[in-house]
Amino acid sequence: MSSSCGRNVVVTLFGESHGPGVGCVIDGFPAGFTPDMDAVAAFMARRAPGKAPGSTPRAEADLPRILSGMHDGRTTGAPITALIENINTRSGDYSDLVRKPRPGHADYTLHVKTGGANDPRGGGHSSGRVTAGLCFAGALAIQYLAAKEVAIKSRITAIAGSAVSCKTDKYGLDEAARAAIDAARRDGDSVGGVVECVIEGLPAGLGDPMFDGVENRIASIVFGIPAVKGVEFGSGFAGSALRGSVNNDPFIFNDLGGVRTRTNNHGGALGGITSGMPVVFRVAIKPTPSISIPQDTVDIQTGKCCRIEIKGRHDACIVPRARPVVEAAAALAALDLLLDP
Amino acid sequence: MSSSCGRNVVVTLFGESHGPGVGCVIDGFPAGFTPDMDAVAAFMARRAPGKAPGSTPRAEADLPRILSGMHDGRTTGAPITALIENINTRSGDYSDLVRKPRPGHADYTLHVKTGGANDPRGGGHSSGRVTAGLCFAGALAIQYLAAKEVAIKSRITAIAGSAVSCKTDKYGLDEAARAAIDAARRDGDSVGGVVECVIEGLPAGLGDPMFDGVENRIASIVFGIPAVKGVEFGSGFAGSALRGSVNNDPFIFNDLGGVRTRTNNHGGALGGITSGMPVVFRVAIKPTPSISIPQDTVDIQTGKCCRIEIKGRHDACIVPRARPVVEAAAALAALDLLLDP
Amino acid sequence: MSSSCGRNVVVTLFGESHGPGVGCVIDGFPAGFTPDMDAVAAFMARRAPGKAPGSTPRAEADLPRILSGMHDGRTTGAPITALIENINTRSGDYSDLVRKPRPGHADYTLHVKTGGANDPRGGGHSSGRVTAGLCFAGALAIQYLAAKEVAIKSRITAIAGSAVSCKTDKYGLDEAARAAIDAARRDGDSVGGVVECVIEGLPAGLGDPMFDGVENRIASIVFGIPAVKGVEFGSGFAGSALRGSVNNDPFIFNDLGGVRTRTNNHGGALGGITSGMPVVFRVAIKPTPSISIPQDTVDIQTGKCCRIEIKGRHDACIVPRARPVVEAAAALAALDLLLDP
Amino acid sequence: MSSSCGRNVVVTLFGESHGPGVGCVIDGFPAGFTPDMDAVAAFMARRAPGKAPGSTPRAEADLPRILSGMHDGRTTGAPITALIENINTRSGDYSDLVRKPRPGHADYTLHVKTGGANDPRGGGHSSGRVTAGLCFAGALAIQYLAAKEVAIKSRITAIAGSAVSCKTDKYGLDEAARAAIDAARRDGDSVGGVVECVIEGLPAGLGDPMFDGVENRIASIVFGIPAVKGVEFGSGFAGSALRGSVNNDPFIFNDLGGVRTRTNNHGGALGGITSGMPVVFRVAIKPTPSISIPQDTVDIQTGKCCRIEIKGRHDACIVPRARPVVEAAAALAALDLLLDP
Repeated sequence: MSSSCGRNVVVTLFGESHGPGVGCVIDGFPAGFTPDMDAVAAFMARRAPGKAPGSTPRAEADLPRILSGMHDGRTTGAPITALIENINTRSGDYSDLVRKPRPGHADYTLHVKTGGANDPRGGGHSSGRVTAGLCFAGALAIQYLAAKEVAIKSRITAIAGSAVSCKTDKYGLDEAARAAIDAARRDGDSVGGVVECVIEGLPAGLGDPMFDGVENRIASIVFGIPAVKGVEFGSGFAGSALRGSVNNDPFIFNDLGGVRTRTNNHGGALGGITSGMPVVFRVAIKPTPSISIPQDTVDIQTGKCCRIEIKGRHDACIVPRARPVVEAAAALAALDLLLDP
Repeated sequence: MSSSCGRNVVVTLFGESHGPGVGCVIDGFPAGFTPDMDAVAAFMARRAPGKAPGSTPRAEADLPRILSGMHDGRTTGAPITALIENINTRSGDYSDLVRKPRPGHADYTLHVKTGGANDPRGGGHSSGRVTAGLCFAGALAIQYLAAKEVAIKSRITAIAGSAVSCKTDKYGLDEAARAAIDAARRDGDSVGGVVECVIEGLPAGLGDPMFDGVENRIASIVFGIPAVKGVEFGSGFAGSALRGSVNNDPFIFNDLGGVRTRTNNHGGALGGITSGMPVVFRVAIKPTPSISIPQDTVDIQTGKCCRIEIKGRHDACIVPRARPVVEAAAALAALDLLLDP
Repeated sequence: MSSSCGRNVVVTLFGESHGPGVGCVIDGFPAGFTPDMDAVAAFMARRAPGKAPGSTPRAEADLPRILSGMHDGRTTGAPITALIENINTRSGDYSDLVRKPRPGHADYTLHVKTGGANDPRGGGHSSGRVTAGLCFAGALAIQYLAAKEVAIKSRITAIAGSAVSCKTDKYGLDEAARAAIDAARRDGDSVGGVVECVIEGLPAGLGDPMFDGVENRIASIVFGIPAVKGVEFGSGFAGSALRGSVNNDPFIFNDLGGVRTRTNNHGGALGGITSGMPVVFRVAIKPTPSISIPQDTVDIQTGKCCRIEIKGRHDACIVPRARPVVEAAAALAALDLLLDP
Repeated sequence: MSSSCGRNVVVTLFGESHGPGVGCVIDGFPAGFTPDMDAVAAFMARRAPGKAPGSTPRAEADLPRILSGMHDGRTTGAPITALIENINTRSGDYSDLVRKPRPGHADYTLHVKTGGANDPRGGGHSSGRVTAGLCFAGALAIQYLAAKEVAIKSRITAIAGSAVSCKTDKYGLDEAARAAIDAARRDGDSVGGVVECVIEGLPAGLGDPMFDGVENRIASIVFGIPAVKGVEFGSGFAGSALRGSVNNDPFIFNDLGGVRTRTNNHGGALGGITSGMPVVFRVAIKPTPSISIPQDTVDIQTGKCCRIEIKGRHDACIVPRARPVVEAAAALAALDLLLDP
């Protein structure tokens, strides 16, 4: 089940960067929900290439075609299949990469795993483009959650190691971040960053103590997003430097008599179970490995060292486009938690 | 399946801190393996209370009793059940905590989730003591992996926010760390830290691109360990501050003609699949929430704010005892990867 | 995961009878296999409507379009998605059935389950047409198994309660069976039957003692085929009437020194594990519930009893078309067993 | 996960016939339920050896010891572990069977699967004794269901091929059945039979169209019971001989305006989803393979044919003891269906 996530709502991703298309099957989505398909498209457009600063110039409309699971505009309870066809593919760019794996990419590991049978074009099934299907599923989940007064929010907290200030553009970038991305692009290089995501409105008591906890479920989806190399909840790694008396969040009552905590170092989950406080997590996104600077690699046919220059079209920074994907992952985890027996 | 982890080797944890015992069922462990039970006991002793600096004085022999799945000292292929009986329990310490949830603990969230039916004594099933079962399973996995020349190593990289030097005692602590723990204990407080774990010897090509990748599998187990609030692989969060040209690991050949990378910022997994380099991850462990300093909390019976002083026996620092648990989690994930079809 | 089956090779079915199409996603199929797509089409044609005696005149080419998971004619290890578009749909036939559920169909139960949000046209996702996706997946599995010298065979053993003789046409029917089907069609009625399926060539030692045994895995897929109401292995229900001394299969050696059994009342599985003898099972297929004879039902809008006449196009006997679907289920279960760790 | 069943309530069975004990872990059972432990013991006693006609004289009290998941007599929501210790074991009886596999048993298949590492004593983990754990879990489920007005009933419909009349003793046997069992025992032989089970009170709309349907879920558990070789629902195999106009169940209204069917040939499930009618299924149980009549088998050490006489203690008919196990399986499937999201 390498390409499926979730327990109650199971999302299966399929597709390759340069094949006929990418998409998803969503099994278990509640019946009778009428999504706003314009809002779905708008959400998916945030991930689509060609817009955000640092994005690849490859432009794709990325409009999903619904193949199953909807009738008269409503979900039917049957598996929902969405297909996003690939249009603007240029496979020629990638022909040489079979023998010379790109550093930081899955070219080599996929080659070993599949005995060379993998689709090498544009990363194949390991391409970030496959997250378009995750975004479609996440867009449905976000709308469903909104009807239950659960909101998913996110912001970019760092680009290239520098904290992002409050004054951001619609891509979540401040001036310094845009400058860092531009500088990297000019150098044929790339930068990474950190995305913080918040799930507001989940009631207390969802999740489980051990392996089906809030953190496990979110992490198991989020680590499916290419380029994610770390996840932390609440005070996270910084919290491990605090004393218990500082990191513990005192319980208080809010105005309505509800139990809250004064601070939220626990990030909304205690013992794997929601506390009623916002679920807060941060995701480390590595600098996109596709850079045009020449790099050392090996030629697995000749057995000799060599250098490659990756031509193609690249993102100098994937973080703005990864933001909606992180939100989608959070929404799917939250929906899954809400639907627990 | 909140208390089960794994796909090929499924480990189910059971038990409570103050019930008859804790333990595990291991389903899918390869048949015909003869574990060294003394080595199992020695591994479990690393997690057992009462020894490491900062550990609770609660002493438990923690010797597992095998209830099933072994015959003539060998694994039979049937589910292996181990029971670690609880002996040294003092439930009286916890009687007041039902109505006044401890900050940073799962008392409140479990209460809400179960409608008050949870076992409140010592955290019940959410107690760190439940990881004794995980350690038993991990000990078997470590031995099995060793026979395949896969080794699990770990070290404490930080305590209370300070890096731990190379000169460590058998608990992985240097002088400053021990001092920080002692200071916290004297103050009735606690400290956290970071554990780094390395899996050496896994061949390239294990894992999967999306949701069953190396990172997902490790994270989904590791976040089942109480007090873990963050996981990062390779360069992790720090890597998100680097440029691609720095963070990318150039491929090279080693002396035997094998493909390696010059650096290991990717932490042994590219696209969710092992690269043949060591799998490296770090785990953020929060300061143990059980502190004797008075804390603010709420009385959920009277609806009033109050303060609590947690008497009982506590760990001023759980990190040394958490180390073998992290190793166990890593071993189980590695074994699971090795057994993939 | 209602629409997914399998453990190592997970097949997810999607689609509706009168939506854009039906299909499947196959996750975990071995990489590097080159299927014969003509043979796939020929296999799927056996299930396609319009050919076998008793089949609906709805004609569909049923040619699958591969959306993912193949490259240069080979499987890549990534999820394989196949879409069979619906062309020849006449939804008008079904407009009245929302309020008057057809006896023997899922109209009523789906209506209750989904709160009326299900796609009622032609049974929606519960239509037998959805098994086209299962047949595609099964066709790949059959070819893969053939390369491992595992063969799937089947025959119709009974139609309308009468045993089918050896002299059968290409649809597995003898003269009496064809006559029974014709008679039912003339009466606007339908007949059912029994399909026997044999998996030859599986080595001994596959499967598991309890819930992942040969029988469990086959049954869990076969009961996903609409109209299947019973499954038995080996001597099955008849065997429950025998004495142990008769039903037990004595072990013998074959000419090559291999262990075999003299008889095969156990149907190839002992304790859930293959014995090396052919796996034999029989499937009871109910008479297709779509008949044109007027039937009693209820009007769930008016709350009154009523009668319905189902116009549309129907199969007077689904058994010949169900045969390849049973073979597909057997092949997928066999492949799954072979890929166990 | 060979020893686990269920989706919302996951039951993991462990133990061997001649090891320390057998038992189960139940993960996901609703919190806050107070089972009547005397009723649990009474239910388990129906399966325990030494009482029913045809039962082995091996007597076991079979009282479960609760190791986890209960507190103050209530379920806590944490995994419930029950251990039934083995007391009356005589392993000496089985020493010769490693090299001479018993016909109809799993001795040979387990030997092949595990490379000879399986526990051969009394069938090891494949022994019917392991169903004691299933009965414990089923007993809890039955009580929980009773509180929701869902009842599980069963009867023996055939012994040794003869229908069982209404006049039965407390073991579900009529005079002819007892005579058939006695005759088999005198001959050192055994007989099988058929158990019918009915789940009453499930609301309409539970289950799923394809692989998580009512039939799939029941079958996947029931085929985990040793000796089960067939399962049919409603009219089952006999229904495949009927015409659609006869087998279809007309919908009607009951006195309260609820939708029912006039007959119940569908056995309570249409398209995998409950119809509100009783769920009815029958299970074929083979004659117990342990007979004392000499049988042909092979000596896998010498490679020669031989004969064995199984001494030990055997059931001449397992059917009366299998009845509660079938009920347990039905109850667990029903509970699982009720807890679906």
